[in-house]
Amino acid sequence: MTNDPLKSALNVMEGVDTPGQINTELVRKLRTRKKKQLSVAEYLDGIYSGNRTVLSRAITLVESSLPGDQELAQEVIAACMAGRKGDGPTDKRHLSATGHRVSDISHPVTSIRVGITGVPGVGKSTFIEALGTLLTSRGHKLAVLAIDPSSTRSKGSILGDKTRMEDLSVDPNAFIRPSPSAGSLGGVARKTRETIILCETAGFDVIFVETVGVGQSETTVHGMVDFFLLLMLAGAGDELQGIKRGIIEMADAIVINKADGDNLNKAKAAKNEYAHALHLFPPSESGWIPVVDICSARTKMGLEPVWKTIMDHHETTHRHGYFQRHRREQNLQVFYETIEEGLKHHFLSGKDIAQPLEKIEQEIRAGLRNPYLAAHELLQKFFNGK
Amino acid sequence: MTNDPLKSALNVMEGVDTPGQINTELVRKLRTRKKKQLSVAEYLDGIYSGNRTVLSRAITLVESSLPGDQELAQEVIAACMAGRKGDGPTDKRHLSATGHRVSDISHPVTSIRVGITGVPGVGKSTFIEALGTLLTSRGHKLAVLAIDPSSTRSKGSILGDKTRMEDLSVDPNAFIRPSPSAGSLGGVARKTRETIILCETAGFDVIFVETVGVGQSETTVHGMVDFFLLLMLAGAGDELQGIKRGIIEMADAIVINKADGDNLNKAKAAKNEYAHALHLFPPSESGWIPVVDICSARTKMGLEPVWKTIMDHHETTHRHGYFQRHRREQNLQVFYETIEEGLKHHFLSGKDIAQPLEKIEQEIRAGLRNPYLAAHELLQKFFNGK
Repeated sequence: MTNDPLKSALNVMEGVDTPGQINTELVRKLRTRKKKQLSVAEYLDGIYSGNRTVLSRAITLVESSLPGDQELAQEVIAACMAGRKGDGPTDKRHLSATGHRVSDISHPVTSIRVGITGVPGVGKSTFIEALGTLLTSRGHKLAVLAIDPSSTRSKGSILGDKTRMEDLSVDPNAFIRPSPSAGSLGGVARKTRETIILCETAGFDVIFVETVGVGQSETTVHGMVDFFLLLMLAGAGDELQGIKRGIIEMADAIVINKADGDNLNKAKAAKNEYAHALHLFPPSESGWIPVVDICSARTKMGLEPVWKTIMDHHETTHRHGYFQRHRREQNLQVFYETIEEGLKHHFLSGKDIAQPLEKIEQEIRAGLRNPYLAAHELLQKFFNGK
Repeated sequence: MTNDPLKSALNVMEGVDTPGQINTELVRKLRTRKKKQLSVAEYLDGIYSGNRTVLSRAITLVESSLPGDQELAQEVIAACMAGRKGDGPTDKRHLSATGHRVSDISHPVTSIRVGITGVPGVGKSTFIEALGTLLTSRGHKLAVLAIDPSSTRSKGSILGDKTRMEDLSVDPNAFIRPSPSAGSLGGVARKTRETIILCETAGFDVIFVETVGVGQSETTVHGMVDFFLLLMLAGAGDELQGIKRGIIEMADAIVINKADGDNLNKAKAAKNEYAHALHLFPPSESGWIPVVDICSARTKMGLEPVWKTIMDHHETTHRHGYFQRHRREQNLQVFYETIEEGLKHHFLSGKDIAQPLEKIEQEIRAGLRNPYLAAHELLQKFFNGK
């Protein structure tokens, strides 16, 4: 918070602060005023020095669909990436574009990116708030991002997100940014990945990426984090209904929340059951055997062990070199997925393709047409028509 | 088996029979003789009337990479598909292209396609042999196909496959066809899917698709079957090493094999453990909760319940309409996957693309380049160069 009314208003606009005693008239005026666009150097200077307003504006830039904004955003992202050696922040990266050295950041050599998923009602916000506050009290700088491609959230619900995390939203070491407003999963994923880079460049060493746990977005989040945490409740069965099959085998840790009061014993029993079950499953590619923890985000019990699990995984995968290899593979995967999506989009919007597509789909669905042959016919049409 | 030496020799050539007392000199002569190509009508007549030699030749045609063969194969496949109403064999389909009605087929309205996977050593061949023999003794007609994209099997190992399944290989109601010789997974998948259509048209009502259980091919097999069966051994832990993560959550049934002798109690315990574990997992899309069975393919204990499980699943999913919907979705998925593969192949073999690709990959791996941006630059290059 600041005493400067202009800065307060700007912060609210940018989603950095919640509206308090600030001059809402001023906010409205500012919103309608065309903001002076920053230069790449100004963005970089601001981001490297940890200026949250500039960071927020950079993220907004990344999320913008205006061609001019896109171009500028890509320059900023490229500069942030060029400032990084290998896969994570290094000393070098704290030198901003203009040579400004940031001295007040003390975090490990590489960031940790944690995906957190769980169905609604499992207590994700409370959990993130509780674990996040623990981390910032230890000197970590935490960014909380969300992926929710179906979201139609507007500026208004940024405040909503902050309200769900009351402590973190006023924590100077935390930065909360909600899901980019509605778009394709691919688009949302790109924006979130670029936002991660911006946040890491701004000195945030722990990144939480939150997702709802019911759709396709978990695979996407799994593809952009180092550690995948599944939040569950005790009382096996009911709470599984909403969870997509395959998520459990993706999890590096299952954390059973709301292990308090009458629920504690049930949670302990569930922990044993899951631990036993996961033992019957193949270990992950990294050799890591998933861990089951219990916690109560409400009473703050068990958060310490959860963080220890994440750190154990971090250290183990670092030692094996898996951590670095995994991040490299993720980058490459994004590259090829983007190419595939782009090609498919181009293909499906072709005039000669889009038109007959519906009929072809019907025939294929009915089992009357060979899907391979239909595909090859369309491909031939597409490439010959060029 | 036949007493006609020419037919015997032909059958060995086609992989229908194992070489017994037949005239190997004749086989060699036949092999070098250019075979007269059949017409589409001749293929269809042969397939519809259940002629195994013609069926085998049709599969060889489907597997051929010669353009002329490909074209003919597609006509045959298209005619087979056109003869089917909806998703499976119907009465109508027993009318061959030339109006010949096949009367000796008595099988359910739709075929059942079962994927069977498990690491080497789990006893897949013995299991398939034992369950298969049970089915053919009940009047089912069984086709056993295999997917193994890394395979470099030649004609020789067709005999190998038959030797692994001694009873089935001489069973008049069984048809064994090994994996198409080496090729891309996509190519092998296409050939196997088309072989399924040919076999179903020839009156085989149960199709087993076997896979090795260690690679990517399980997802592919999962995408072409109605029921996915994972074969395992008791003694959790060790045998998991080879299994890919994610396979367990794909399984409709886990069958613990070699439940005999000293192993029986261990198998029973493993059954309980897995059943308990699977209960903690979300049900599949069809609402089906995976079943765990034990069996001994050697002593033939427990095969009956395994088949009952498959039939239960068949009936349940039919009742819900999931069965039909699932097959339609599979067809559509093949269509889109083929388009994606074709586009990607075309793209990556572009001269302006293939060349800079290695350098771009390196930069992306090193985290020095934005994978989205790199992808879009290449896409622009590709489509502008057209």
